[in-house]
Amino acid sequence: MKNTIGQSVSVTLFGESHGDAIGVVIDGLAPGIDIDNEFISSQLEKRKGKNNLSTRRRESDSFRILSGVFEGKTTGTPIAVIIENEDTKSKDYGKTKDLARPGHADYSAYCKYHGFQDYRGGGHFSGRITAPLVVAGAIALKALESKGIKIGTHVYSCADISDRSFENFSEDFSLLDELSVPVLDDEARKLIEEKIELIKCEGDSIGGILETAVIGVPSGVGEPWFDSVESLLSHILFSIPAVKGVEFGAGFNFSKMCGSAANDSFRMVDGKVISETNNNGGINGGITNGMPIVFKCAVKPTPSIYKQQNTVDFIKNENAVLQIKGRHDPAIVHRAAVVVSSVTALCLIDMLSQRFGTDYFCGGKI
Amino acid sequence: MKNTIGQSVSVTLFGESHGDAIGVVIDGLAPGIDIDNEFISSQLEKRKGKNNLSTRRRESDSFRILSGVFEGKTTGTPIAVIIENEDTKSKDYGKTKDLARPGHADYSAYCKYHGFQDYRGGGHFSGRITAPLVVAGAIALKALESKGIKIGTHVYSCADISDRSFENFSEDFSLLDELSVPVLDDEARKLIEEKIELIKCEGDSIGGILETAVIGVPSGVGEPWFDSVESLLSHILFSIPAVKGVEFGAGFNFSKMCGSAANDSFRMVDGKVISETNNNGGINGGITNGMPIVFKCAVKPTPSIYKQQNTVDFIKNENAVLQIKGRHDPAIVHRAAVVVSSVTALCLIDMLSQRFGTDYFCGGKI
Amino acid sequence: MKNTIGQSVSVTLFGESHGDAIGVVIDGLAPGIDIDNEFISSQLEKRKGKNNLSTRRRESDSFRILSGVFEGKTTGTPIAVIIENEDTKSKDYGKTKDLARPGHADYSAYCKYHGFQDYRGGGHFSGRITAPLVVAGAIALKALESKGIKIGTHVYSCADISDRSFENFSEDFSLLDELSVPVLDDEARKLIEEKIELIKCEGDSIGGILETAVIGVPSGVGEPWFDSVESLLSHILFSIPAVKGVEFGAGFNFSKMCGSAANDSFRMVDGKVISETNNNGGINGGITNGMPIVFKCAVKPTPSIYKQQNTVDFIKNENAVLQIKGRHDPAIVHRAAVVVSSVTALCLIDMLSQRFGTDYFCGGKI
Amino acid sequence: MKNTIGQSVSVTLFGESHGDAIGVVIDGLAPGIDIDNEFISSQLEKRKGKNNLSTRRRESDSFRILSGVFEGKTTGTPIAVIIENEDTKSKDYGKTKDLARPGHADYSAYCKYHGFQDYRGGGHFSGRITAPLVVAGAIALKALESKGIKIGTHVYSCADISDRSFENFSEDFSLLDELSVPVLDDEARKLIEEKIELIKCEGDSIGGILETAVIGVPSGVGEPWFDSVESLLSHILFSIPAVKGVEFGAGFNFSKMCGSAANDSFRMVDGKVISETNNNGGINGGITNGMPIVFKCAVKPTPSIYKQQNTVDFIKNENAVLQIKGRHDPAIVHRAAVVVSSVTALCLIDMLSQRFGTDYFCGGKI
Repeated sequence: MKNTIGQSVSVTLFGESHGDAIGVVIDGLAPGIDIDNEFISSQLEKRKGKNNLSTRRRESDSFRILSGVFEGKTTGTPIAVIIENEDTKSKDYGKTKDLARPGHADYSAYCKYHGFQDYRGGGHFSGRITAPLVVAGAIALKALESKGIKIGTHVYSCADISDRSFENFSEDFSLLDELSVPVLDDEARKLIEEKIELIKCEGDSIGGILETAVIGVPSGVGEPWFDSVESLLSHILFSIPAVKGVEFGAGFNFSKMCGSAANDSFRMVDGKVISETNNNGGINGGITNGMPIVFKCAVKPTPSIYKQQNTVDFIKNENAVLQIKGRHDPAIVHRAAVVVSSVTALCLIDMLSQRFGTDYFCGGKI
Repeated sequence: MKNTIGQSVSVTLFGESHGDAIGVVIDGLAPGIDIDNEFISSQLEKRKGKNNLSTRRRESDSFRILSGVFEGKTTGTPIAVIIENEDTKSKDYGKTKDLARPGHADYSAYCKYHGFQDYRGGGHFSGRITAPLVVAGAIALKALESKGIKIGTHVYSCADISDRSFENFSEDFSLLDELSVPVLDDEARKLIEEKIELIKCEGDSIGGILETAVIGVPSGVGEPWFDSVESLLSHILFSIPAVKGVEFGAGFNFSKMCGSAANDSFRMVDGKVISETNNNGGINGGITNGMPIVFKCAVKPTPSIYKQQNTVDFIKNENAVLQIKGRHDPAIVHRAAVVVSSVTALCLIDMLSQRFGTDYFCGGKI
Repeated sequence: MKNTIGQSVSVTLFGESHGDAIGVVIDGLAPGIDIDNEFISSQLEKRKGKNNLSTRRRESDSFRILSGVFEGKTTGTPIAVIIENEDTKSKDYGKTKDLARPGHADYSAYCKYHGFQDYRGGGHFSGRITAPLVVAGAIALKALESKGIKIGTHVYSCADISDRSFENFSEDFSLLDELSVPVLDDEARKLIEEKIELIKCEGDSIGGILETAVIGVPSGVGEPWFDSVESLLSHILFSIPAVKGVEFGAGFNFSKMCGSAANDSFRMVDGKVISETNNNGGINGGITNGMPIVFKCAVKPTPSIYKQQNTVDFIKNENAVLQIKGRHDPAIVHRAAVVVSSVTALCLIDMLSQRFGTDYFCGGKI
Repeated sequence: MKNTIGQSVSVTLFGESHGDAIGVVIDGLAPGIDIDNEFISSQLEKRKGKNNLSTRRRESDSFRILSGVFEGKTTGTPIAVIIENEDTKSKDYGKTKDLARPGHADYSAYCKYHGFQDYRGGGHFSGRITAPLVVAGAIALKALESKGIKIGTHVYSCADISDRSFENFSEDFSLLDELSVPVLDDEARKLIEEKIELIKCEGDSIGGILETAVIGVPSGVGEPWFDSVESLLSHILFSIPAVKGVEFGAGFNFSKMCGSAANDSFRMVDGKVISETNNNGGINGGITNGMPIVFKCAVKPTPSIYKQQNTVDFIKNENAVLQIKGRHDPAIVHRAAVVVSSVTALCLIDMLSQRFGTDYFCGGKI
């Protein structure tokens, strides 16, 4: 297992869906960063999903900071946060524990852990483990904000319904915070909500695409070849279990573009170098160019569905039929938005601390 | 700069396009692995492109192994390989060195290196630096082959022309080796070659998509959360400067799929667990499930084109017009195929050595 | 801050002396390792010191495992352990918080954290933070034991009183577990206990030397140059704040030895290669040779003493006189023994997991 | 093998004693650092030893910089340096290749590499591999000097002859550069040279102790717990094969000291916090306090001696008698001084770049 990521600022994740508690340790954050408990809670709320489009598990998700914060600010030492597990209906899962749920990690985890893994509720592979990531990300987001860096994520598409794209620089991300499903266009949002409702009735699930923009990152950040901005961001984005694709700027559309259309021409505007288009998503040669960093993540449909599925019993080594019970989401793409913003913030605060030193985000006093 | 990647097996890359030499150090490879110089050379040939679809720079690309190989086998100590630079027409570049070539790293590198970077021919950001990666990858590919693991990459699409997909397990990757442009379908290959020729005549360039399959990786490999197979592969894939998108299995198509279609049902076949479909690209929860690992990379069109472009002079801070001269490719997607296979091999040999120990690839004698 | 160490098996440490809780996350341990809560508790007891030679802080040190353990065994996922802080007499410290205690981290931490650090009781620099290391180490010690690897540490000297050295292979480390001060020779132990009592009466403190032996590590382990066995062990040993010297085998005595005396002659004994002497401490060229790994650690006297000391007020930037109150140890060398064994175990389990794969310590079932 | 070390600034080492070439890649250095080829050469000369006290191997040690330097300054990209091997008398070694030289890595390397290692001249374990480290260190030393940081190393003792210690702050390290054996006291130097001559006549070898001081490092540097200054320095120091002990400040003498004597009282001098003594070697709690960083390294006697030794043939698994021929040093402690200073510089430039950002050592222009 590799549950630690980051160099100057690192994040260590732990916990199982039905264990005692889940949590995170964030290490290397500068001292003097304000901790905004209300903001952390509001981010956790977004992850839970605000309405009937989400799972019915009653997670209070009250987090507890054990270390690294003193008098409301970071001390510079590791911040450990835990969320106690409650309402864990373990009995739901025990019965089918040797049946590999298609699309889930049950079988691959069995191959890796030889049967010792905590199978209850997906164990360490549960989407619930993203909650501590959101706590860590909320702290990072606030620190980035103090340097004028903002991150927004919206549902770019779901099924065959598409939202509009972010517009460079001018976007007000806070508008997304009010929405149960973060879609920019009102009509598209309505259609997506209806689609998810429909899928729910069918006992099925649906995927989607998220688009993220980061505004305010200075140019000259990134450590190619191997720690290009794309490399570091994709590394942490693909840690989110549901993410199966990541593209920067024009991404897969580049395959149909000519260089003359794909190249982003540079221009001087108000004494600043900008590019007229942003097909490269703010990154050239793995280094930021000062334009917004823009990328999309493909989110697969939740594998947990109510429909009957073919599978195997991996202990008996025989075919089986599986009927999953319990609480399941018809879609997680809207809940994943805050997770994507969170890990993006964690990646950026690490990159910027490497580039500009461990005091870069320090609050005053230096 | 972070030019080292990997934990058990690491790769360190160095060199500039017009410097003395470029090269690579591969460390942590097991002892006793056969070094096949002819295979390495043939891989380098693939990277150069075999015909008139590629750049005209005469790179002899003769590599020299300085260490870590004794009596034709790896010793277990670091393998350093260099390729001397020849035919470096530096004068072509000096004239326009302060004009940011759109789509290139010139401006972002200037922001990072404050003008000290070697600007000649793209310096350390040149695609030429992929040559040592191919040497390292060739060694890794042979080691993987000794364990029954094979990697193939083909051009999946270019402009609006699509190839067929790899078929699970049954594909003979060696057929691709004979082709100047690695496309599975004969008709599609012909169309793609014609398209590239056309683009060349226009002085423009075109992008494409590569599909890669890895057959024979055992189940239970991967270190989630943060070193999921997707995380580690995407990290190194996005190190290739032209790669702007990576998707595993159904990837972005997941956004339109229902869980009931996306989930890969497991079945017992000949006493072995397999999945009926492979939408997850051989990876569940970041861990291999024994099915082929399948992913696609979006390759952007070469930014170097003959057409006149708007840009800025980043020293004078003023708008400028750029007309690039010198040698340029109309497409690099076919040349990038071997680079993608190479870094995939390097990533896998590292993952497998972590999982099964540093002697896993050792040749005999233990 | 870098509070994570290790590659295949990593340890992340967090907490402040007077914060909510302290703890540790151990990641990468193989699945199926037995968790022995009684052994963990007994190791924590050793760290506290069993008698009147130690601090009077009443730490119940009851640890709580939050994750990574299921049905009494490791799952293979991160194990998070916390110890809640109790009996924190913070008021003792607040008054003198801007006076740098000589020998402590107060001033250097102020320079690093700009005043945001939690000053109470030494904060993150408190010796108390070694408690979670001991928990992690206890788990590692048991895993190593299952492979026939044993670790013992005794007080080799204190002031001018010396113990005998470990004898190769034949030592029964469990005898040390019964002792309040782990000294091999009965007479030396009595003298050392008397010496510590005397120092206590004087309101002063005293240092010492620990000797550690590791028996049963196979030959061929270690990753030179930079991850030589000495490099990895010293790295983690010097993380213990009181350790200011580490030597392997003959160590500093090598400076007076001739090669003819220092070289350890090899011999065949019972079909096995052994060395007649062990001046190299079981390590040649950074790689284990199958002999016991033997090293010594210098432990400085506790900086907290009752005597009046000259210092500075680092806020007012002026000279000051300091009289420390509160609970202090006259010696910590005997309490540090279990900490040294613990971090040694953590280092070895990482090295062995890298060398032999992540399943090396897995309990059965494979 | 782990032949890469460092986080912001990393060093990758490669090569075998009798292979084609040895070398190093330094990555992450700031752009704009002056490269002083003469200084690099003079450092290599020191490593070779200037007189008849050293090996007679004729190493021209002419280094060649392949990348990362442009117009006499670092570019910010990886600097690869190679030294071609010459005068490699391989035949001397082949005859006895299966006899483990006592004190050498032959047997432990055989256990690790299963017989595939390059045995000639010690292969990758040869002291010769320190030459590229000295090249890398020379570049780092010059960069540190530009920030007012100086590093000096002298032979503190050899056999029973002791030099005086460095005096804080006031030492002129450049005086040591003129000496064939870097000893501060003239009389001690004469005695040590005589001692080494004597040992040489006897066909034996002798060890010694080096003392190093680093002046000018700002306070507040170091990343405890696990990347304490002592941890990072000892890690790289113990990579040098002959180093078997490292102590900081009073080191092992702490074992006999009371806290009241060991604690370094702080005082204000000229508005600056200094300590009256420096028993802690400039480091409190793993973080620099602004005083000189002072440490000692124990260097074992060269294992290669002319005297006949008992050993084993590790292929035949039988006892044997070994008589080593070829070129050997009676002492390497004086040659190791420059290696110790070099790795110290590499460690510090990494720590400082982490602390203050990757541009910290950048020459001008920012």
